Amino acid sequence: MKRCFSALLLGLLLLRSNMILAGDLDSWNKGPNRQAILDYVKKVTVKGSPSFIPIEDRIAVFDNDGTLWTEKPIPIQARFAVDRVKALAPKHPEWKTQQPFQAVLQNDASYFNRMTETESVKLLAATHLGMTEDEFVTIVGDWFKTARDPHSGELLVHRVYQPLLELLSFLRGHDFKTYIVTGGGTEFVRAVAESAYGIPPEQVIGSSIIMKWEIRDGKSVFLRELKIAEPLNIDAGKPVNIQRIIGRAPVIAVGNSDGDLQMLQYASTNSYPSLNLLVHHDDAAREAAYDEGAEKILKEAKEKKWRVISMKNDFSRIYPGAIRPGG
Amino acid sequence: MKRCFSALLLGLLLLRSNMILAGDLDSWNKGPNRQAILDYVKKVTVKGSPSFIPIEDRIAVFDNDGTLWTEKPIPIQARFAVDRVKALAPKHPEWKTQQPFQAVLQNDASYFNRMTETESVKLLAATHLGMTEDEFVTIVGDWFKTARDPHSGELLVHRVYQPLLELLSFLRGHDFKTYIVTGGGTEFVRAVAESAYGIPPEQVIGSSIIMKWEIRDGKSVFLRELKIAEPLNIDAGKPVNIQRIIGRAPVIAVGNSDGDLQMLQYASTNSYPSLNLLVHHDDAAREAAYDEGAEKILKEAKEKKWRVISMKNDFSRIYPGAIRPGG
Repeated sequence: MKRCFSALLLGLLLLRSNMILAGDLDSWNKGPNRQAILDYVKKVTVKGSPSFIPIEDRIAVFDNDGTLWTEKPIPIQARFAVDRVKALAPKHPEWKTQQPFQAVLQNDASYFNRMTETESVKLLAATHLGMTEDEFVTIVGDWFKTARDPHSGELLVHRVYQPLLELLSFLRGHDFKTYIVTGGGTEFVRAVAESAYGIPPEQVIGSSIIMKWEIRDGKSVFLRELKIAEPLNIDAGKPVNIQRIIGRAPVIAVGNSDGDLQMLQYASTNSYPSLNLLVHHDDAAREAAYDEGAEKILKEAKEKKWRVISMKNDFSRIYPGAIRPGG
Repeated sequence: MKRCFSALLLGLLLLRSNMILAGDLDSWNKGPNRQAILDYVKKVTVKGSPSFIPIEDRIAVFDNDGTLWTEKPIPIQARFAVDRVKALAPKHPEWKTQQPFQAVLQNDASYFNRMTETESVKLLAATHLGMTEDEFVTIVGDWFKTARDPHSGELLVHRVYQPLLELLSFLRGHDFKTYIVTGGGTEFVRAVAESAYGIPPEQVIGSSIIMKWEIRDGKSVFLRELKIAEPLNIDAGKPVNIQRIIGRAPVIAVGNSDGDLQMLQYASTNSYPSLNLLVHHDDAAREAAYDEGAEKILKEAKEKKWRVISMKNDFSRIYPGAIRPGG
């Protein structure tokens, strides 16, 4: 009896933590986009269907920033870099007068847009490199425990889109293998991908550094050094890395910005029927409304009749636990 | 009834094609090495065992050349390059007097050992590059249909080690995820990994080139160009690429040469109990006897008590279908 109660409690906790009911798209409003997803999945997974896709070829790729979690007001990994600079600043008094650190310490958000590539690399090196992989994962994990969205006060790790969590779960329930294919850092995203999305490390493909391996005191360590792996996982780098790492073309691709255009084009050329979804940020009240950086992909989505998902109209809620007024 | 008969026939054909009885290590002679494998797998997979490893962490990595298939008299991918040079030679009369092509056309096997790096790259470029990925996979697949071992006359695709096929199958039957981690080309090995070993493309990690993606006539193509991805998948490159692509440390590592040393070291530092196997080529009668290129790993295996698998004593047969005289 006690065990039953524990199981029930655990079930409720799990339910509360991600609000997913297997197989449901509860936070999607009924309409042509939700229906298109249901129709597509039915069409390609029902045995005997002329559009049937064998399980091993059911590859679904998801961008992360702005597709699975919010990228506003600044991308979550950039926020990590900012917080890290602030945490390390006492040990680096010289940063007070050195860019880009000075701008970060003075909360000059506009500086991010005019940062040179050299400055970006300096910021990356100071906040993401010069440590072992285990140390980095611990730092990132600890940071996520307390890092909060400045506006809502919610934990950043909860700024994931509930309808996309449901879509991931729905697809996995139909034997799709769900991958994150992100311009963000592979190791940064892996640090939370399992708990936030139920996606294991081997299904996270991101921008990478080439680490150095060695044994220290009988333990394997990977040293994070400034050696960026080519290609960066944006634009045409996404298909290239998908091919190299997965070796199969995706049948479902979900993105939100021009950096995802080639990934969606890649899926759309699959010889199997494909489903391309573009998350459109048009909900200023509940999230953010912006087309900047998505002009090309929005244009192509219209031309190619990819599904443009309106966050305002297609999502009954945006974040886990956040119920839309009246919804 | 007819359907039953077809199923039976299919079953027999499948059985014949790889000789695997699930869960058995039939081609391993009884002895301490076979027993060590059985004991290890039992210890880490039986629920409640203090050494239990959760399914998601059951990562088993296998080198390919000399570990899963033969690398004598020359590695299979080198043989492909040789045959490819010969096939293309009529279009390249200049090769008759140009190295390394001249040596290849004159069957000068010894030249392989004194080839410069520039010459190796020339050979790679002429035989593996300058085409699309689909074209390359077709060429490799077609080649494997007829390429034969010069001594036995057997198809090269059958020069895989039966006991290793059984080990792969046995591990998968216990929820291990089996990866090939090879110094050979990712795409070359992927072309046969599924049919030869039951290993899907996303579980093949090899040396890679960075391909270029584009759309041609509405289809995605990946162009194979001379842009070698770092690091090559040998030596310390193996742990580095395992970390980058899988993101988990292996608990089982199987290799045969010094290029696998760091991969086995990596597995041996896993916080879970690990199993390291070294395939030792000591069977001149049935395969080949050589320690060249394996001196370091043989030394370390002895020091660290890794299991050295004697092909002569531990394997009752080497290749599928080939029964040892009297065995």
